[in-house]
Parts: sequence; structure tokens; C-alpha cells
Amino acid sequence: MTAKTLQDLFIHALSDVYSAEKQLTKALPKMARASSNPDLAAAFQTHLEETQGQIERIDQVVEKEGLKLKRIKCAAMEGLVEEGQEIVDEIEKGPVRDAGLIGAAQKVEHYEIATYGTLCALAKHLGFTVSAKLLHDTLLEEKATDEKLSKFAQQDVNLAAKAASK
Amino acid sequence: MTAKTLQDLFIHALSDVYSAEKQLTKALPKMARASSNPDLAAAFQTHLEETQGQIERIDQVVEKEGLKLKRIKCAAMEGLVEEGQEIVDEIEKGPVRDAGLIGAAQKVEHYEIATYGTLCALAKHLGFTVSAKLLHDTLLEEKATDEKLSKFAQQDVNLAAKAASK
Repeated sequence: MTAKTLQDLFIHALSDVYSAEKQLTKALPKMARASSNPDLAAAFQTHLEETQGQIERIDQVVEKEGLKLKRIKCAAMEGLVEEGQEIVDEIEKGPVRDAGLIGAAQKVEHYEIATYGTLCALAKHLGFTVSAKLLHDTLLEEKATDEKLSKFAQQDVNLAAKAASK
Repeated sequence: MTAKTLQDLFIHALSDVYSAEKQLTKALPKMARASSNPDLAAAFQTHLEETQGQIERIDQVVEKEGLKLKRIKCAAMEGLVEEGQEIVDEIEKGPVRDAGLIGAAQKVEHYEIATYGTLCALAKHLGFTVSAKLLHDTLLEEKATDEKLSKFAQQDVNLAAKAASK
């Protein structure tokens, strides 16, 4: 990393989340296929499209501010994707697996909420006004996805799983 | 994992966060020592004490509901702790490192916010009323810590880092 300035830190965090989003574009189709609830599968599919848009925003930030991203692999997202894969490997398709997938996806969303929150704060301090706005748009999308997943968890999947467990 | 019921899923998630909290009790003292801002170091120290209380709450849940936790290692927290260690290894002590540490700590908090949110929802559906309350107390602590860290990031450390970068 060898970050000496806030701008170095910003570049590192942006490179990290770029890796995280790329990993997520591979994980989300698997999560969609693994869901038994078609609405949940559709929500994962929608978030895949959003994630692709978020990667484009990172490219815009890089271009706008004349930065060069580093090739790093986000270790935390590797762990988060691994947790999602464990759910798929260990639980048969059905509402209990769906509840597990929702939990795994919410961990991913919160990872991104924290990361984009930090990136927004850094961008503002660095005077990257347009980029701060782009990163904030992504932050709002991540929060909306998390809320959507909470509704699934509360209203639908957990109740179905409870019924199936009886 | 071999989770067939919501209770299996609850036990898995609780075992996972137990491992995460244990890992965190080892990481937080390092983060406190690595901070140049004494207020930030004190906040990490305070959160260490809270984390120890949160582990005790997990023990209470286990006892109350007659559960048996599994020995697993939370892979996501391993990745998150690794990210924090990278910050310490690669940035010399000072305000830029402090800003990085705050970002890393907020990722940890959000991991826990997502996890305890899921655990609360599962506990409620399982009829674990007292445990749901205990887990909710922890959830509120994690959210309060995240907000405290956001204030540090906004008001103090980032500004100092910006000044130092000039």
C-alpha cells in the first residue's frame, strides 16, 4: 500500500472495492440460481445489474480524478463470498437456505456501505466533488438493497422457513 | 454446517459471530496501539470492553436456549482483520494511518451490524424472546460504535490527515 497521503488511502480503498465489486459480479448469479424464492432470485439479479453500474462509476471516478487503481484482491470480500458459498454447499434448496443467503447478502451490503461511506468522506476532504456525488449514489443503492433484503427476511423467507421447519 | 432448520441456521450464525468477536478481541488492542490520536485509541479500548461483554451475551444466549456452538473460524472477520493489519504495516503512525484504521474498524462494525440484525430476526422467529433482546442490545452497541467512528472520521482525523498531506 505505502500510503503517505489521504489520496493514497483513497486510491487504496477504491482499488479494494473495485476488486470487491468484481468478485460480487461472479457471486450474485450463483446466489440467484441457489434461491428457491423467485422474488429473491430476481432481487439478486437486479443487484447484479446495479453492481455493474457501480463498477462503471468507479471507472468514472478514476478517469475524472486522473487516478491509477492498484491490482489488489479484497480479502474481506473473499471471506464474505466464501460464507455465501458455504450456505449453498451445506443447505439444500429451500426457505432455510434462502434465509441464509439473505443473511450472507446483507453482510456483503454492509461491507459496501462501510466502504462507500469512507470513500465519500475521503472524496469530500480531497475536494473530489463530482466523485463524492457518484460514490454517494452507490452508497444509497447499497443501503436500499440492504433494506430490501431486510424486508425479505422479515416478511417472507423466515416465516416460510419457520413453517417448513415444523 | 448441514443446517436443515432455522434453529440450525441460528446456531451457525451465532457460532460464526462468536469466532468473529474472539478474533476482534485480539485485533482491537493492536489497533489502539497503532493509533496516533489518543481519543481514537481510547475508543478502540472502550470497544474492546464492549466486545468482551458481547461475548458474554452470546454465552448467555447459548445457556438460555440450551444450544451448543460449533467450532468454526469466521473467514470474513479474518479478511477484515487482515485489512486492518495491512493499514498498520503499510502506513506510518500518524493521521493518515488513523483515517485508514477508522475505515477498517467501520467495516468490522458493519459486518457485526448485519450479523446481529440477522440473529435478532432469527431469534424472534424462533420465539427466543430474551435472547432476541440480548442480541438487540449488542446490535445497538455496534451501531453506536459505528456512529462514533463516523464522527471521528468527519470531524477530526481526516482533517488532520489532510493538513498533514499538504
